[in-house]
Amino acid sequence: MEAKEFKEFAKAMADYVAEYLENIRDRQVVPSVKPGYLRPLIPEQAPVKPEPWTAVMDDIERVIMSGVTHWHSPRFFAYFPTANSYPSIVADMLSGAIACIGFSWIASPACTELEVVMMDWLGQMIGLPDEFLARSGGEAGGVIQGTASEATLVALLGAKSRTMHRVKEEHPEWTEYQILSKLVGYCNSQAHSSVERAGLLGGVQLRTLKPDDKRRLRGETLQEAIDEDIRKGLIPFYVVATLGTTSSCAFDALDEIGDVCNSNNVWLHIDAAYAGSAFICPEYRYLMKGVEKADSFNFNPHKWMLVNFDCSAMWLKQPRWIVDAFNVDPLYLKHDQQGSAPDYRHWQIPLGRRFRSLKLWFVMRLYGVENLQKFIRKHIALAHYFEKLCLGDERFELFEEVTMGLVCFRLKGSNENNEALLRRINGRGKIHLVPSKVDDVYFLRLAICSRFTEESDIDIAWKEVKASADEVLAEN
Amino acid sequence: MEAKEFKEFAKAMADYVAEYLENIRDRQVVPSVKPGYLRPLIPEQAPVKPEPWTAVMDDIERVIMSGVTHWHSPRFFAYFPTANSYPSIVADMLSGAIACIGFSWIASPACTELEVVMMDWLGQMIGLPDEFLARSGGEAGGVIQGTASEATLVALLGAKSRTMHRVKEEHPEWTEYQILSKLVGYCNSQAHSSVERAGLLGGVQLRTLKPDDKRRLRGETLQEAIDEDIRKGLIPFYVVATLGTTSSCAFDALDEIGDVCNSNNVWLHIDAAYAGSAFICPEYRYLMKGVEKADSFNFNPHKWMLVNFDCSAMWLKQPRWIVDAFNVDPLYLKHDQQGSAPDYRHWQIPLGRRFRSLKLWFVMRLYGVENLQKFIRKHIALAHYFEKLCLGDERFELFEEVTMGLVCFRLKGSNENNEALLRRINGRGKIHLVPSKVDDVYFLRLAICSRFTEESDIDIAWKEVKASADEVLAEN
Ligand SMILES: Cc1ncc(COP(=O)(O)O)c(C=O)c1O
Ligand SMILES: Cc1ncc(COP(=O)(O)O)c(C=O)c1O
Repeated sequence: MEAKEFKEFAKAMADYVAEYLENIRDRQVVPSVKPGYLRPLIPEQAPVKPEPWTAVMDDIERVIMSGVTHWHSPRFFAYFPTANSYPSIVADMLSGAIACIGFSWIASPACTELEVVMMDWLGQMIGLPDEFLARSGGEAGGVIQGTASEATLVALLGAKSRTMHRVKEEHPEWTEYQILSKLVGYCNSQAHSSVERAGLLGGVQLRTLKPDDKRRLRGETLQEAIDEDIRKGLIPFYVVATLGTTSSCAFDALDEIGDVCNSNNVWLHIDAAYAGSAFICPEYRYLMKGVEKADSFNFNPHKWMLVNFDCSAMWLKQPRWIVDAFNVDPLYLKHDQQGSAPDYRHWQIPLGRRFRSLKLWFVMRLYGVENLQKFIRKHIALAHYFEKLCLGDERFELFEEVTMGLVCFRLKGSNENNEALLRRINGRGKIHLVPSKVDDVYFLRLAICSRFTEESDIDIAWKEVKASADEVLAEN
Repeated sequence: MEAKEFKEFAKAMADYVAEYLENIRDRQVVPSVKPGYLRPLIPEQAPVKPEPWTAVMDDIERVIMSGVTHWHSPRFFAYFPTANSYPSIVADMLSGAIACIGFSWIASPACTELEVVMMDWLGQMIGLPDEFLARSGGEAGGVIQGTASEATLVALLGAKSRTMHRVKEEHPEWTEYQILSKLVGYCNSQAHSSVERAGLLGGVQLRTLKPDDKRRLRGETLQEAIDEDIRKGLIPFYVVATLGTTSSCAFDALDEIGDVCNSNNVWLHIDAAYAGSAFICPEYRYLMKGVEKADSFNFNPHKWMLVNFDCSAMWLKQPRWIVDAFNVDPLYLKHDQQGSAPDYRHWQIPLGRRFRSLKLWFVMRLYGVENLQKFIRKHIALAHYFEKLCLGDERFELFEEVTMGLVCFRLKGSNENNEALLRRINGRGKIHLVPSKVDDVYFLRLAICSRFTEESDIDIAWKEVKASADEVLAEN
């Protein structure tokens, strides 16, 4: 493909993309295809001769869109949001054209340096203390990870290497595997499944602790678990505090947990994957009180800050422990400037990395802090609007207080009724929700996901929920 | 940003991107900036009010391009190539617009299904046996990983869970940590640093074995190491065979290694990160003889097949072992169709995943197999052209036979002279190379990287190398 054709193709795609997003409301949110739908629609093998771009363009609706779940439809309320914005899409075009692999400073200085500074911008924007930021002049700083799952794993590896280092000095007679078998980490039983996965991957025990009646992990519970494990001869080394759990958007008691971690020499990682974006708004920062006690902090601009996937923002006070965990450096990756700027390959699981900070730069500049705040506040207001509708119908109850853009609700009564309700709602095909279950209580989650969602969409969602409830209860 | 502005912005960016790539030859390949160059060029904080897109556009040259290492310059010969093509950039626009998170089939059927079928197309294109492909009807199939490093880690985790399962049955009295401490994996000492990293991450021993005088790991060497470790009471469980080592593009003796692995019940993973793309051309498939003996195979279309990063293609005969390693499934991720199509979240380290198969689809269709083959053959021919120039000057010698697009060469004589040569070449600023060192022999690597590279660029590269050599030798 030549430049001339590319320009035609890219411009046609820009028109298509705008058309798709502006009219996304009219599409059926979840497609009605069955597994295996796609294979018969296309040839069995790659073509030998090149096809014209118009042929590809023609296939998008037929092959792709017919099987797409429209995450950016204002009628999509499942999971948590994933971000999408025009500035971010354009930034990725530039990133694709430069297509450098920023594993070290020299491999593309701009790629590393924009990331360092953007992570400072972003850290300041959410009110992170200076001790997490590169501008403080020490080793601390931010890095863009692909996902929150990777951040949790990276933090665990840092915690592991810090603790191994200490324990080896205290007990030179112990082998690596002896130490490893004693390490134990902790999280709320409501923490994201990626925390458990990080434990599996890192080959260490992770205990899930029971939260209080508001699904918050408390300091006291953590202290008790730590005491118990120390008595058993184990070595507590890592805690993940969740700000905004996936099931119900509960916030761990960070301030309490922070004290317990600090006084027990335990690495504290904060997973604020979804809710972290809300800290752009000062009125929500009370939820991260105690953040200065943590060793690492992570949230996903790719969830709720209009930066397209993948952009998970992580800050570390002492990245040296991560670097230590990955200390393998062949000659072809060494360079003269080593040490004067971070070589981000040591801060992450993969070696290669794209120029992802461009997305952050474009989004922060083209929205401005003010509009990003507006966006967050609007989503939270829409959640409260749905909450109000819900509470106005006495058949319904909330499972959890609404603090962010998530409403956890249910029909009063049996789980079976609520399972039937969900099936009914999704079956009608107008909106899309997923359920969750906590302490054996099954409930529905309505997350405000799309940047196109308006009150009228919430009215429709409520109408769907109500009509489905009518049907379910009529059958009882 | 509204749709109208987006269209203007995206179209302006399309023009910029085409202009950048078509004239990339005229840019200085490595920028002359010093660490810290960028911070003073932009404000200390994100703007409160939105800026116009034209302001961002204006800053690209000043802030970004001044610090970019141009990986797609035809004068860039460092590392290995990273891919970049017009069809791929446009595919990423569409992926950005759909912006689904394809962690399960239901989360976007098209995202999973196109990936399944594209991995079949690609597998057939490189001549992979049917037992690796989904179309064979069993559990086997392909998955797009972010990087080859992740693929190596994922395969290691699969190997670990398969072996743990077996050993637990044989020795129910052993603890997890006892088994873990006995596991041992193997690779060529020339394997990529990510293999060692995977071992560190997975918490298992990895032995690096000495290759033969052509830098190939041989079956006999592996068998000896395995015998020795079994005598010590260890449990061999994993081997990585490299097809195309990073330092010098050597190929492990796969066929021999495969036999050893199969007869010792050891998982064989193939890392063909760079060289794998060459298997599109039947004349290079002799280098992957024995591939059917492997459990998993990986190569990076994002290196040498014109698909932008990140797109690392991995096939697994028995993905169930990976799924087993990650067996954590909360309610909000379950769905009705579970089991009838792969839920790719179980095949990878992160949870979230973009719609990356679009890039493969666009590239394969818009180039066609024929042009992809042409592209590979041209790169290899250019490497041979440089080889010829090099061998025509008796001061030079090759460190390794040229098989792919990499030439490993040096001045006859001391390492110091060659270090001086590299500094001189890169110092002149016209071309960019990185060195390597194997068995204490320091040499220079010239990798054909850009799709814009022509014979005339090789002539210039050779002129630079020769002139630098003249200077170095004159000083001796
Ligand atoms: C609290 C929490 N942590 C982690 C994750 C995983 O995010 P990612 O896909 O970026 O790994 C999620 C996703 O919903 C989440 O809600
Ligand atoms: C043989 C080999 N394996 C693995 C890698 C790492 O690739 P990635 O950046 O995709 O992890 C490379 C990179 O050059 C390589 O040459």
